[in-house]
This record gives sequence, C-alpha cells and structure tokens, in this order.
Amino acid sequence: MSTMGEQPTPKGLRLKRVAIDTYRENVAYLHRDCALYRAEGFQALSKIEIDVDGQRTLAVLNVVDDAAIVGPEELGLSETAFARLGASEGTAVRISQAEPPVSMDAVRRKIDGDRLTREEFHAVIQDIVAGRYAKTEMAAFLVACTQNGLDRDEVLYLTQAMLKTGEHLDWHERLVADKHCIGGIPGNRTSMLVVPIVAAHGMLIPKTSSRAITSPAGTADTMEVLAEVELPPERLREIVQVHRGCLAWGGTARLAPADDVLIAVERPLGLDSQGQMIASILSKKLAAGSTHLLIDIPVGPTAKVRSMRQALALRKLFEFVADRMDLHLEVVITDGRQPIGRGIGPVLEARDVMQVLQNDPEAPQDLRQKALRLAGRVIEFDPDVRGGQGYAIARDILDSGRALAKMNDLIEAQGRQRHHFAPGELGFEVRAERDGVVVGIDNFLLARLARYAGAPMDKGAGVDLFKKLGDPVEQGEPLYRVHAQFPADEQFARRLVAQKGNGYRIGNDSEIPSAYVEF
Amino acid sequence: MSTMGEQPTPKGLRLKRVAIDTYRENVAYLHRDCALYRAEGFQALSKIEIDVDGQRTLAVLNVVDDAAIVGPEELGLSETAFARLGASEGTAVRISQAEPPVSMDAVRRKIDGDRLTREEFHAVIQDIVAGRYAKTEMAAFLVACTQNGLDRDEVLYLTQAMLKTGEHLDWHERLVADKHCIGGIPGNRTSMLVVPIVAAHGMLIPKTSSRAITSPAGTADTMEVLAEVELPPERLREIVQVHRGCLAWGGTARLAPADDVLIAVERPLGLDSQGQMIASILSKKLAAGSTHLLIDIPVGPTAKVRSMRQALALRKLFEFVADRMDLHLEVVITDGRQPIGRGIGPVLEARDVMQVLQNDPEAPQDLRQKALRLAGRVIEFDPDVRGGQGYAIARDILDSGRALAKMNDLIEAQGRQRHHFAPGELGFEVRAERDGVVVGIDNFLLARLARYAGAPMDKGAGVDLFKKLGDPVEQGEPLYRVHAQFPADEQFARRLVAQKGNGYRIGNDSEIPSAYVEF
Repeated sequence: MSTMGEQPTPKGLRLKRVAIDTYRENVAYLHRDCALYRAEGFQALSKIEIDVDGQRTLAVLNVVDDAAIVGPEELGLSETAFARLGASEGTAVRISQAEPPVSMDAVRRKIDGDRLTREEFHAVIQDIVAGRYAKTEMAAFLVACTQNGLDRDEVLYLTQAMLKTGEHLDWHERLVADKHCIGGIPGNRTSMLVVPIVAAHGMLIPKTSSRAITSPAGTADTMEVLAEVELPPERLREIVQVHRGCLAWGGTARLAPADDVLIAVERPLGLDSQGQMIASILSKKLAAGSTHLLIDIPVGPTAKVRSMRQALALRKLFEFVADRMDLHLEVVITDGRQPIGRGIGPVLEARDVMQVLQNDPEAPQDLRQKALRLAGRVIEFDPDVRGGQGYAIARDILDSGRALAKMNDLIEAQGRQRHHFAPGELGFEVRAERDGVVVGIDNFLLARLARYAGAPMDKGAGVDLFKKLGDPVEQGEPLYRVHAQFPADEQFARRLVAQKGNGYRIGNDSEIPSAYVEF
Repeated sequence: MSTMGEQPTPKGLRLKRVAIDTYRENVAYLHRDCALYRAEGFQALSKIEIDVDGQRTLAVLNVVDDAAIVGPEELGLSETAFARLGASEGTAVRISQAEPPVSMDAVRRKIDGDRLTREEFHAVIQDIVAGRYAKTEMAAFLVACTQNGLDRDEVLYLTQAMLKTGEHLDWHERLVADKHCIGGIPGNRTSMLVVPIVAAHGMLIPKTSSRAITSPAGTADTMEVLAEVELPPERLREIVQVHRGCLAWGGTARLAPADDVLIAVERPLGLDSQGQMIASILSKKLAAGSTHLLIDIPVGPTAKVRSMRQALALRKLFEFVADRMDLHLEVVITDGRQPIGRGIGPVLEARDVMQVLQNDPEAPQDLRQKALRLAGRVIEFDPDVRGGQGYAIARDILDSGRALAKMNDLIEAQGRQRHHFAPGELGFEVRAERDGVVVGIDNFLLARLARYAGAPMDKGAGVDLFKKLGDPVEQGEPLYRVHAQFPADEQFARRLVAQKGNGYRIGNDSEIPSAYVEF
C-alpha cells in the first residue's frame, strides 16, 4: 500500500510543454484516448490539479485528438502553466479533478451581495496572480464587483491587494509625477505633450502607457509612430535618469500582475466597474513609483462619464483611496463632449501632437489647450511653483520650443522609428447631409469607425476630423475622412457608417451641449 | 481598388483544423510570427472574427509558438470553431478584431440591474448556441442572472429561449413521464428504482441522466456499473418502445445546446441561480418530450435548499413556468438532512439500488421508502389511477419482483456491463470520537470526500455509511468506510478528513434537526 514514489503511480503521465500562449490562463491538454484517464471522466473545461512531487498547479482542461500536440500518455501544459509548474518535459505528473480555489467562496459571497474584507480581497488577488483562477472565475469576480458595486473601503482593499502582489519601482526621488486619463475620448493624446513639457520643467515623469485594447490608439501605439516604445527596464531607467521622462510601453505584467490578467478578461466584456478601474489605475501608478498623480475625467454625453454628478462621485472615490495609500492625487474634470484634436488613429494622432509641439498654426487648438492645462497642473505639484502659475510655465516651455526639443531627445533616446508610417491611402470622405452647425459628435462611434478602418494595428488607419462642435457646415461638405490600408477594412468601415450613421449630429447652435470643465 | 476576390487579400491566411476540443468555445490559434498580423496587434484572449467569403465566426485568440500546431501563415481553429465555420483546410480566411456579440448589450444591462425581455433572452441564448460567446461572456451572463436574480417572467423567457434553440423529441404518446431531483444529496439514486417501477406499471418513462460534474456520482455513472449507458439515439428509441423506459446517459447537447454549454461554465463556478436551474431543467425535459414531470426538492441544513420557505418559493417558480409551457408538473419536498441509502459513489450506490430491487432485508429502508413515494406520485399521473393509490401500486410492483425483472430487462436491452466493478480495496474507516447519537451528517462534505477518494471516475471509490441520523454510536465505533483504488486518492481523502473533520455531528437526541417532508 505504500509503493508510491518507488514506482510511478498508476496515474502517471509525462509532462509536455505545448507552445500555446493562453494569456495567463493555465490550460492543460489531454489526449482523448489517454489510456489511464478516459478524458470523458474529466470533461473539457473541468479544472484539474497537476501534481509533481507535491508541487501543485491548477489548469483548465482541453481535450486533444492529435497525438502531435499531446500523446495519450502525456499531459500538455500551455506556456504559462508549464512555466508556473517549473518542472521539465518528461517529468512524471499526476492529475486529479480540482476543487475551485478557496477564495472563490468569497467571490460567491460577493455575488450574493456581501461585502468582502481586506483579507478576502487579498486572497482572491493572490489566487489570481498564482494562476489558480480560470478566466470564467475571473469574469465572475469582475461581474460581481461591477454589479453590486464595491464600497469605498472595498476599493481600497482591492487596490492594496493588487499593489501587494506585484513588484515596485523606486526612482529614489521625492517627487515622481504622472498623469492618467480614464479614457473614452478618441484622439486624446495629451500625455505626448504633457510629458515633454513637464520633463523640460525638470520634474520626473517616467510615463509608461498601454497599447490600445478597445480604443483605436493607446499612447504607446501613437508614440511608436515616432520612436521605439518597447524598451528593456534598465534602458528605460537610464533614459528617465538622463531626460527626466519617457514615453514607453508599460508591459505592466511585472508591476501589476493581477491587473494585467483581470484587464484581459474585463475589457472584452465591456464591463464598467468604477471601483475596479480605480484600483487598477492606482495600484499600477503606485507600483510604478508615482508620488503625485493627476487624473483626467472627461465628461460628455458619449464619454465614459456622462454627468457631473457621476464625475464628482468618481473623484471622491479616487481621493479617498489615494489619501489612504499616501499618494498625492488631484482630479480634473474635462470636456469630453467630442474627440480631442483632429486625428484618430496612431499616425493621425502623432501628426496632431507634432503640430502642437512645433507651434504649427494649423495645430489643433483644443489639444494644445488641454495639454497645457494638464501640464500646468502637474507642474504645480512642484512645491516651488506658486499656485496658478503652472499654466504659464507650461505655455512658455511649449512656445519656446523646449517641449519640442525634449520630445526629440526622448525620441532619440528611445530610438527613432525607422519605418515611415503614413496615413492609409484608401478610405473615403463622409459628408454633411444637411446645412447647420455640428451639435454632437459620438466619441464611441468614431472610435469604433477608426478601429474598423484598421487602427491601431494599421498605424495609418483611422479618422481625420475636419469639423468639430460648433462648426457651421453646408450640405455635402466633408465632415471627416476615413483612412484605411486594406480594401476589406475600408469596406468594413463603410458598412459601419451605412448601418450606424456617421456619428455627427447637425442642428442649430442652441442644441450644442454645454461643456463641464472644472479646471 | 476592387481586386478583392481575384487575388487573396493582403490579410489572407490558410485555414487549419487544430484537433483541440475546447468544449464549445471557439478558439483560434495564430502563430506569434504571423507575417501579416503581428500577433501582438491582437493580444491573446482578444476575440477575432474569421471571414470566409462572407461566412463569419467569432473565436477567442490563443497565440502559438510552435509551427507544428500552426504556421505563421495559417489560422488554426479548435474543433468546434472549425466545424462551425464549415470550410475546408487550406481555405483562405481573413480575420479582424471582433466586436462583442450585440446581445452582450443586454447582458451588460442585466449586470446593471435591468430586467430583460423575451426577445433579449432569445438573442443571448441564440448567440451562445451559435458560438458567438466566449466563456467569460457566458460567465458574465450567468453571474448577472444569479446576482440580481431573475423574476418569474424572466425565468419563463429563459426557458423558452433554451427550448427554442435545440431539437425536440416526440414519443407520440399522450403521457411521457419523468422525474428529476434538483440534486445535492449524496447517494440519492431513486431514479434507478422509480424508472423500473413506473415502466413496469406500463407508463412511458424514457429517463436520460447526466454524468456527475460536481457530485460523486450521477445516475448515468451508477447505471454504468450495471449496463451500457451511451446508446445511439435510434437504439434508445427502440429500447423505450419495447420496455417503456430506459436509464441512459443524456448526451444533452442536441436537445439543449445552450444548457449544455452554460452548465459547463456554471458548475465549476459553483453558482447557485434558481432561475437558471429551473430554466435548465424544464427546457431539457420539454425538449426530451416529457409531458408529466415530478420534481424532488430535498431540504436540509446541508442540502441545496436549506429552509421550507426557500423550497416553497422554488416550487412556485417551477409551477409558474411549467404551467405556461403546458407541462404537467408536480413538486415534492423531501427530507434532505442526510445522504440517502448507504453508498456514495457508483459501485456502492448500485449495490444499494440492487438490494432494494431484490427485496434484500439488508436494503437501505430510506432509499426504498423515498423511491416508492416518488414512484407512487409518478404513477398517479396516470388518469386511471385513483389519487392516493400510487404508493400501494409502486410497492406491489417492487415487492412482487416485477421492478427487478424490469431492471434486468433494461440492463439486457442496454447491454449488460461486461466489466465487473468492485468497491475500491484501499481506504480507511472513520470512527466516532465520542459516545452519543448521530445528530448531523454533512451532505456536502461527504460528497466531497467521495470525490477525493476518486468517485465518479473510479467507480469503486466512495464512502459507505454505517450510521445515519438518530443512530446511537459509541466512541471508536466506525461511522463509515472510505473506499479508494489508488494510494494517492486515499491520502487525499484522509487529508480532507484531517482538515475539515469527518462530517458527522454526535450529540443527543434533542439536537436532531426535524425533517421537512411534504409527501
């Protein structure tokens, strides 16, 4: 009865690495004819526990019918799962039906409407980081947090749990600034202006950004039109030390491993959980070493936040958590009624940014103004700057060409992009159907249109706006041009306009919604 | 600009079937070095749309680093996705980032607390059946229905939607009976007694059952100890016509495709949505052609339903939906304070069933009594049976050996099991820690213990109870024996008892919880 260890147990399988990247979900592959376990005993999508000499990992099961992927006496593991188990190919492994992670009890209680404790949030996040949650379990957690909501203490606990489970950067400076927009406004590329301005002022602003997931361009995608953005951590540190800033891709997996995997599940679901968003933003910024953070909340009828009441509630929640995490945070509520600048899509947005930096008279003034205001507020984090002086300092830096010079320094330091990206040559113009004034531009639809046209993957794809809110238009006058690189994308974009309209509302002056601007 | 169709578009990839069964989730595999699309442009877990000459399918993306699985110019599809697309290997396909299915808007509204319409439930279920939902989207739908609950109209709509999206059986008889227990009580194998009794009475009872997913044995697993249970539909139909009944595995995918895939996501999450459960049960029974259905709701401190109030609410909900679906339904509320019979696990449960059928004086009386009462109620569906006479008829059929004869007929017809399964030879006894009376048995813990010991995969594994509620015990007297087949399972089960206790509460008579029995 105690022959274990001396001979392979009757359930031994040989471990095999299957080179499939399932994005941090552990997946196990078992051949349908697996001699020892009829695969039916488990069922596809079951969770199994894999055991190598007491080292255990959970994985979701996929059943395989091709012995080239896994043979009947092998257990295949996806790359994440294989790396996590840390055993070599050929090792004898045992598998068994897995119980769900213990912290799922807390998730189920959250689904039932309970409030969770600090310890429970920590346990959930730790299990997620350790790969013990299936994607569906993460989805359940996210929906539970969205549906009954998180109270402010719960948001704090979640933030703390997410911060605790990742690595931290330390810049060894007293003031490390950052800015972050909650998103939803196409063309809103202010970071590419705020960073050079603030860095030129001498304040440390090591900005790392994400690539677009559901939007037509992230800051990283747009910056990549001009420079390399995927830099090794050591290189990034050098650049920041020399130039006081950077505009790089975050690759946040190390700093915020829980957030990284939760976002991958949450975004495609289109969930909108304020608590989850705040925990995600603040834990990432804290892990990246920020001490001072400016949050931009755009408000408008087609923005993420649609009323001032909502924006204020969100601001309070940001403040509550930041205060308890010892982060100096300020929130600005900005005009989110329409896209910022003209271009939507990496190449077109990069063009707008460079026009502003070059003080080109053609530069979009709304982008310039917004960037100056944000940069001004960040500069006022500097204790030596008198309240209210930030804007003037920022404007001087921009007008004098020092911001452009800083941007060029950053581009050279990160590595100037060798490929020349141009706006997509295919496309079509969308024209006004009547005379009048532009009284509404649908952020959501225009973002979608730019994506349909191929952005952000095709950097030249996107939408170039000729008219903004309040502009008079005549019937037949072009409102915007869609740029695409491939005929199929162009068609796809055309179909969207045909089905959903062009996103513009033409009316008379009195119908223009009023802006909520708080800074 | 209109060269499409004449030559492959720049984004053309060749289709490849990847023999991985992802259980009805469409998964696409793209090589990381895919020349046309840098895989990073999409991100693993993104949803992509696959287009072959206008035929479109959605799939979740996995990124592959092994050209043996897919090459850089190929698009691999999991078996489900490949079959769904219906194109042959080598076909040129286009892919693009997919929008979530339109009906996800309804899911998000449900998450926000809205009530959904009949049309919205239909759209969600149709999209799920068509493979347009990722597992995470299904999890979101399920959690949303659990958390804010479904009102009774929504349960009806969901039932109708699930029924509409599958095939239907028609037995061409006026009265097709079935029984169903909502589950949660180990050892509760009454179907294997009710079916032979009712079929011997001459009533049609074509019972198909599931295999265990989270329990230590389903009726199909236990019946398989005695006979074949996986039968082709035509064979099943013949058996039912000749013998008036069957005890087979459901293979419900055709009849209730939505339920099949939702359950695969729901069960591992351990969600407990009454509305979802009712829709699942009733749509499946209606699709299987049932006209008369008896529902068994066990109530007890460790049962799924823990109070009479809850049981009554559930009964009303069953009745509401059944009445509107033109199904004759009756609900019995039964004693769920402890496991039924002695054995837990396929072999041990099959032994109990056969003892009852053989009128063995050792047969567990609780199993016999419960089966007779249920069978009696089913028999009373017969308009020729006077109300209150069902029990006596059932008892006569059992006592006379006609039920045993019918069971043997079914076993022969389905194909007698050629493999002899015996109780696992490893294992251990669990003994009373003090003198007293058994005042509590934890259904949930004992089910888990039987699973840890290897049930239902190892048919001989499980738990054999020696003591039930109210039995006096002396310190050191065995309460039950755990049977296992493999040393590792035995150890796993031992560890559970060490950690969580043995599931028995010993006290004095007055502490025994009272039973709620309504029939």
